[in-house]
Amino acid sequence: MHASVEWQGKMAFTGQGSTATTVALDAPPVVGGEGNGFRPKELMLNALAGCTAMDVISILRKMKCEPEAFRVEVSAEESEEHPKVFTAFHIKYLVKGEVPADKLEKAINLSQERYCGVTSMYSQFAEVTHEVVQE
Amino acid sequence: MHASVEWQGKMAFTGQGSTATTVALDAPPVVGGEGNGFRPKELMLNALAGCTAMDVISILRKMKCEPEAFRVEVSAEESEEHPKVFTAFHIKYLVKGEVPADKLEKAINLSQERYCGVTSMYSQFAEVTHEVVQE
Repeated sequence: MHASVEWQGKMAFTGQGSTATTVALDAPPVVGGEGNGFRPKELMLNALAGCTAMDVISILRKMKCEPEAFRVEVSAEESEEHPKVFTAFHIKYLVKGEVPADKLEKAINLSQERYCGVTSMYSQFAEVTHEVVQE
Repeated sequence: MHASVEWQGKMAFTGQGSTATTVALDAPPVVGGEGNGFRPKELMLNALAGCTAMDVISILRKMKCEPEAFRVEVSAEESEEHPKVFTAFHIKYLVKGEVPADKLEKAINLSQERYCGVTSMYSQFAEVTHEVVQE
C-alpha cells in the first residue's frame, strides 16, 4: 500500500492514495500554516474511525440489520514532549435505527478483537477503549 | 485531538477533523465499496508522510533553504492474516531545488529522530526506513 503528499507552499500539502481522491493537509496558524486542511495526526484518527466503521457496517449488513445512520468518533490524548505521540484512544460508535444491541455489540467486538488492523497497530503503543451510543 | 467518520451508504464514509475540511473514505469493489475514496489504512500512510513532510519543510524554511518542489511518498508492507497490519514502512523524500544535501539530511534526521510523532508511534510496531532523492 502507498500514499504521498505534495507540497503546496507554506505548510499546505495535498495527499493522495491509490485512487484519484485527494485530501488537504495543513498546519494551524500557530505553527505557520493556515488551518485549511487536516493535521497529519488527525488523519491517524480518521484511519482508526474508518477502519472499524467499515468492519462494523460490513458485519451488520451480513447480519441483515443495517442502521439508518452510523457515525464513529475518535478522540485521543497526546503527550506534551517531542516527539508528540498519542497516549490513549477512545472510539465512540453512534448508531441510529433498529439494530439489536446484541448484534451491534457482536459486530463491534469482532472488529476490535479480530478484524481492525488499525486498532491492532495502535494498541501496540496506547490503550484503545470504546463505547456504544444507540439513538 | 479528535476526528470522525459519517456513513454515506455502502462502504462510503466522510471523514472530518478539527477544521471544515473533509475526506472521502471508501473500500475497493472487491469488499463491497466503490473505490471512491481513501482506504482507511492509506490515511495512516498520509499521516506519516504529512507529519514528517511538515517537519522537514518547517526546518528547511528556518535554515533559509526552501525547496522549489517537495514531495514525500510512503509505501508499506502488510501482513496477510487478520487483523491485517503494516509490518514495514518506507519513506521517500523527493526534493527539487537548491537545497544543500547536508542541510536536507539534517532536517530529515531531526524529523525522524526527534520531532515526528507519527514516525515515533509507527516505530513501536514496525520498522521505518527512509531515503532521499534530490532532483
